[in-house]
Amino acid sequence: MQKIDVCYSPELLHLYNIENSIVVVVDVFRATSCMTTAFAHGVEGIIPVATVDECVNYQQQGYLAAAERDGKTPEGFDFDNSPFSYMVEKVKGATICVTTTNGTLAITKSKTAVKVMIGSFLNLGALTKYLKDVQYDVLVLCAGWKGKPNLEDTLFAGALVENLKNEFMIEDDSALMALRQYENAKSDLLSYVATSSHVKRLQRLGIQKDIAFCLQQDLYDVLPVLRGNTLVKM
Amino acid sequence: MQKIDVCYSPELLHLYNIENSIVVVVDVFRATSCMTTAFAHGVEGIIPVATVDECVNYQQQGYLAAAERDGKTPEGFDFDNSPFSYMVEKVKGATICVTTTNGTLAITKSKTAVKVMIGSFLNLGALTKYLKDVQYDVLVLCAGWKGKPNLEDTLFAGALVENLKNEFMIEDDSALMALRQYENAKSDLLSYVATSSHVKRLQRLGIQKDIAFCLQQDLYDVLPVLRGNTLVKM
Repeated sequence: MQKIDVCYSPELLHLYNIENSIVVVVDVFRATSCMTTAFAHGVEGIIPVATVDECVNYQQQGYLAAAERDGKTPEGFDFDNSPFSYMVEKVKGATICVTTTNGTLAITKSKTAVKVMIGSFLNLGALTKYLKDVQYDVLVLCAGWKGKPNLEDTLFAGALVENLKNEFMIEDDSALMALRQYENAKSDLLSYVATSSHVKRLQRLGIQKDIAFCLQQDLYDVLPVLRGNTLVKM
Repeated sequence: MQKIDVCYSPELLHLYNIENSIVVVVDVFRATSCMTTAFAHGVEGIIPVATVDECVNYQQQGYLAAAERDGKTPEGFDFDNSPFSYMVEKVKGATICVTTTNGTLAITKSKTAVKVMIGSFLNLGALTKYLKDVQYDVLVLCAGWKGKPNLEDTLFAGALVENLKNEFMIEDDSALMALRQYENAKSDLLSYVATSSHVKRLQRLGIQKDIAFCLQQDLYDVLPVLRGNTLVKM
């Protein structure tokens, strides 16, 4: 029986053997929710990069570019880190270069895995359906906040563990704790996350609308996956 | 208002600023439960060291010595890693050198803190009473299992957060998640931890008695604290 486990932070990823695993990277608020939304609206590819400088370089080569640091968008980029900014005509067929505080680092750190997939509540159902039949272990990698665990990514991990618990063995306490946290929260995710640190941070930035949007389940039937250095639709 | 936070693993400790904090190190199964029990039975001092070799060196200098690796005791030591082995006459007035898989590393990594204290369910009440009046931030450092978070240490952290939540501000999601996990578990801790990875590991080693013992609250009114390289009673 394959195993499912959860890593609460990219800072702990070296403790996990990902060479034979599918890694699902999640950054609910908001990187992986944005990516899921972008693919659902016709984006061709997303290039995740670690630094704002790299992102600017891609932009100068003619790519569309999106950047976020500390929840805000630096000047001069084509998108901010809101899923709503990807619901526009210009994304169709485009390849976009993206850097964010936590999410893109989690993706670039996972490159040695069998497959790197993008997870969010928005494509939870599609992910569940796909992963039920795979022959590899699954590790959910929470992007967290600057290396520290966070509530919303842990809840997504718990949701995926719940959906896959009949097909996969729960490997360790991190997965078990995420599952129990989600079981507690699932009847009203929005209230449950309302006291979390990142939601408070986002509320200060005035983006409550994004929070509610990113907690919706199964809105999009897309499976973004990393091919080389670029995320594409599977 | 002072802040209380929780660090799930020594591997994440570099993300926390502990220079102005009191760090409470917890390794419920079983290092810090053993230490609490030892002080309650008259031990004078405990020297935590990182390696089995260092521990042997102290033993050769005439100290009593205790070692644990992967839940088992290597040959030739005076105590194993069970709290019951410290309920003996020979501990009175003795200084014991100890090394364990997770707990002693967590202690030695915390040395730059204002104060390093030893926490376990056995001395939760004494710790709560002391910490209510301190003028520093508090960080609960979970020893975890080989760098990964575990359930029982997270539950202890949640218990301490619950006890101190009127006096301290809850700093971050890690503390919030530990609190909620504990609120869920507290009516029956023993059942709640029964499915955890470490309890399964310990059950394979035949030490169910230790598990039940280590989950008892407020058994001992002792506050072990690090002075230099040695834990002493405060």
